Amino acid sequence: MICTFQSKAQKTGLYKHILSDVVTISSRVLNENRKIYIHYPTPDTANLNKKYPVLYLMDAESHFDMLSQYTDYLSRWDVNVIPQMIVVGITNTKRTRDLTPTKSIINYFGQPDTSAISWMKPSGGNEAFLQFIREELMPYIETNYKTQPFKIFAGHSFGGIASINCMLTHPDMFDAYIAISPSLWWDGEYVLKLADKKLKKASVLKKTLFYSDASEGVKDSSSYHTNLLKFDTLLMNKALNGLDYKYKYYPTETHMTEPIVAYYDALRFIYKDWISPTKK
Amino acid sequence: MICTFQSKAQKTGLYKHILSDVVTISSRVLNENRKIYIHYPTPDTANLNKKYPVLYLMDAESHFDMLSQYTDYLSRWDVNVIPQMIVVGITNTKRTRDLTPTKSIINYFGQPDTSAISWMKPSGGNEAFLQFIREELMPYIETNYKTQPFKIFAGHSFGGIASINCMLTHPDMFDAYIAISPSLWWDGEYVLKLADKKLKKASVLKKTLFYSDASEGVKDSSSYHTNLLKFDTLLMNKALNGLDYKYKYYPTETHMTEPIVAYYDALRFIYKDWISPTKK
Repeated sequence: MICTFQSKAQKTGLYKHILSDVVTISSRVLNENRKIYIHYPTPDTANLNKKYPVLYLMDAESHFDMLSQYTDYLSRWDVNVIPQMIVVGITNTKRTRDLTPTKSIINYFGQPDTSAISWMKPSGGNEAFLQFIREELMPYIETNYKTQPFKIFAGHSFGGIASINCMLTHPDMFDAYIAISPSLWWDGEYVLKLADKKLKKASVLKKTLFYSDASEGVKDSSSYHTNLLKFDTLLMNKALNGLDYKYKYYPTETHMTEPIVAYYDALRFIYKDWISPTKK
Repeated sequence: MICTFQSKAQKTGLYKHILSDVVTISSRVLNENRKIYIHYPTPDTANLNKKYPVLYLMDAESHFDMLSQYTDYLSRWDVNVIPQMIVVGITNTKRTRDLTPTKSIINYFGQPDTSAISWMKPSGGNEAFLQFIREELMPYIETNYKTQPFKIFAGHSFGGIASINCMLTHPDMFDAYIAISPSLWWDGEYVLKLADKKLKKASVLKKTLFYSDASEGVKDSSSYHTNLLKFDTLLMNKALNGLDYKYKYYPTETHMTEPIVAYYDALRFIYKDWISPTKK
């Protein structure tokens, strides 16, 4: 019986947010199963062979919804400031192992963490993680989804140093790199030293790079912010040929709120010269 | 058969973004069915009676995913800058009818649109739309979801004037109002004049209000931006007792990219003094 003073209402199902698959890849490189989230644009019925750039995202547990929503919204016909794209979100198994470039037990405060159960013990597996992406994940995505060659690699914190480390050691893997608050403190500023060594002055590096930091250095009086400034100065002095880069500092954001503004700014920066085919 | 040179991979299902219901309300006030999206936090098994503030959002087709993702992310334990909340997204049937406060055929350029098929013809139904929210939607939400009394009303463009019109004509419906690029040009600046009439100098209005605009006025040499400045000056001169308001101008954003940054800033502004119970 329905009370006549109340409006009728009925639940008509669960809301379908956006299209995404979950794929489990049994990795030979890492000798474990890896769970991958893949978001893709609604198929264009007028052009079923349409191909899309691919954004590979670390820490998918934290930022996959955000990037899926951003790429969908910003590529809508009435917003139209970036192309539609595929977002490949890599979830973590052993995060510290995968995202750090060296084995180190020197913690954020510069002290060795010698405890037997130190979270830093399994560090230094970024090279193998990049091999997994290159040899197993990318072939899967390129076989099963409609991909363009253009690829973006995006990470936050340890994911930020993984992104920069990839650009320095395997620059050809991606076209654009996003490093949000990269942990440049890692292992006595290892990535800063690597950048100085790998990047020869005035050499060619036709890539796009966005990096940023937030209130970390201010909040904890650490060298977080100074390290970002050092990296920025290093890139300026190297005067690389073809590197299109931008640094943004967000002193009013925290380490964890920063990705909301920085991922947006990064996408706008990477596609600042993009002109929608429908606007040409 | 699986090729041994390839890693095994299998699709393990569709990705579950975030929890949201779709509800159809058969409205007596509007004499039509209204489709509502409702996003709610994952139930807290340690506190099943936990109650949440509610954000009522206009133009759900455009911004429901965005607000659901923002409220989820920003209330995570490791981000923790706003409380978890319920997002109620109202989709449109006749958008111009519902979101405009007066019947008008004066278009954006100040010219009367006298064509028989003018999109402006059905304008002026905002009072009935607010009645629908007050008498039908809110009771449904409050009966079926675990709600706190605190409520936010959020809209963009015509949704922006609907939000301000609600604050002026039914201030008690909500605790906080968000008006992103409100169309203050509507009907010879009707809402500006209404604000001047309704808001008595130094009177009490214990509400929170965030409003903003983007490049509209610059791009099309219209009075869009000047109108926002007029509204801002009006509020300053009225010196209302208890009104906590903020105006933000985003000259580098367009009318359609602005919601990404402005909804984020609005949420941070409304909850700027909020202290997480887990941090107390």
